[in-house]
Amino acid sequence: MSNTGSVSPVIDELIESLKSLPGLGPRSAARIANHLLVNDRAAALRLAQALDDACRKIGRCEYCNTLSESSVCPICADAERDHEQLCIVESPADQRVIEETMTYHGLYFVLMGLISPIQGIGGTQLGLEKLMTRIEASEIKEVMIATPYTPEGDATAHFIAQAIKARGFDIHVTRLARGVPAGVELEYTDANTIANAIFARR
Amino acid sequence: MSNTGSVSPVIDELIESLKSLPGLGPRSAARIANHLLVNDRAAALRLAQALDDACRKIGRCEYCNTLSESSVCPICADAERDHEQLCIVESPADQRVIEETMTYHGLYFVLMGLISPIQGIGGTQLGLEKLMTRIEASEIKEVMIATPYTPEGDATAHFIAQAIKARGFDIHVTRLARGVPAGVELEYTDANTIANAIFARR
Repeated sequence: MSNTGSVSPVIDELIESLKSLPGLGPRSAARIANHLLVNDRAAALRLAQALDDACRKIGRCEYCNTLSESSVCPICADAERDHEQLCIVESPADQRVIEETMTYHGLYFVLMGLISPIQGIGGTQLGLEKLMTRIEASEIKEVMIATPYTPEGDATAHFIAQAIKARGFDIHVTRLARGVPAGVELEYTDANTIANAIFARR
Repeated sequence: MSNTGSVSPVIDELIESLKSLPGLGPRSAARIANHLLVNDRAAALRLAQALDDACRKIGRCEYCNTLSESSVCPICADAERDHEQLCIVESPADQRVIEETMTYHGLYFVLMGLISPIQGIGGTQLGLEKLMTRIEASEIKEVMIATPYTPEGDATAHFIAQAIKARGFDIHVTRLARGVPAGVELEYTDANTIANAIFARR
């Protein structure tokens, strides 16, 4: 016990669980655990409930693949959105940032990853067949690829553009203008920069 | 819906709950929520369980005031520890860091805060009467004050030293040597520095 500095297996387990969150090291995890138990148990119980609820209720939208409570997400189900435009993003976080700009009113497809030859993730592993089926069965006239300007983002954009061309779809394929800073994850970019990149897309 | 970038109240609630953790902003909270729901639901459920368990099972040690599963914590209950030494710390996190140095084998008293005239926290609000009762009913011969070298830490150390003197207890009062960097929270200090400060205490 004294050789780990621990006084409680229950607190140790809480700290270990917090350490599994991306971006939290051991000191931050210990600090958060103590803060919750000493000062804010209501916040701890609220988070426990929210995690539990989300895991039970959240699945994937059958059209756009994003995280969703319903089998078709509210954006795909919204008749007022432009069903001729499809924006392809890496993650729900990127989708959220684009929605926050309030400059895009079409639909989405969420890849939940990027092509990465180093990690052995190709078009098949990424489920791009689902994307192609989605495009084929739709009235889509423009695909806007919003993957980041990183090697993986570029490879994914290229792969999707080629796949659309190879199938002979009559679709205008664009990509976010290079106002988005290169090498940076989209979700860390401010809304203004993303809005400009949407207007200047090519 | 589209003016907040949200697609799900359940995910929004998860992000809000994560934002209440100290040190997490809105982007980090969204990133963690997505990571858990897309890649690691096992980690999310484990954290939910750990939070729930900790809130149900963790109380305070009746001797040293630290977070504890049992009414007397394992350190206070350990007959092999030196019951003549008492180390006074601000928080369970600070206690944990001192335990990790493996250089201190006495008991603790955890203040759960510091004296802060600006915030209206004096000796009474901090519960220093409990500390004095604790010292009076014990065989303690040395009190080592390990509050940080900040204005609040200094005020707390001074207050405790004066209170012990005023009661006429025959106790040697020391403070961690000033190897601990001034103005920095103890829990962010490396174990080596703290170990040196323990050996050089005055």
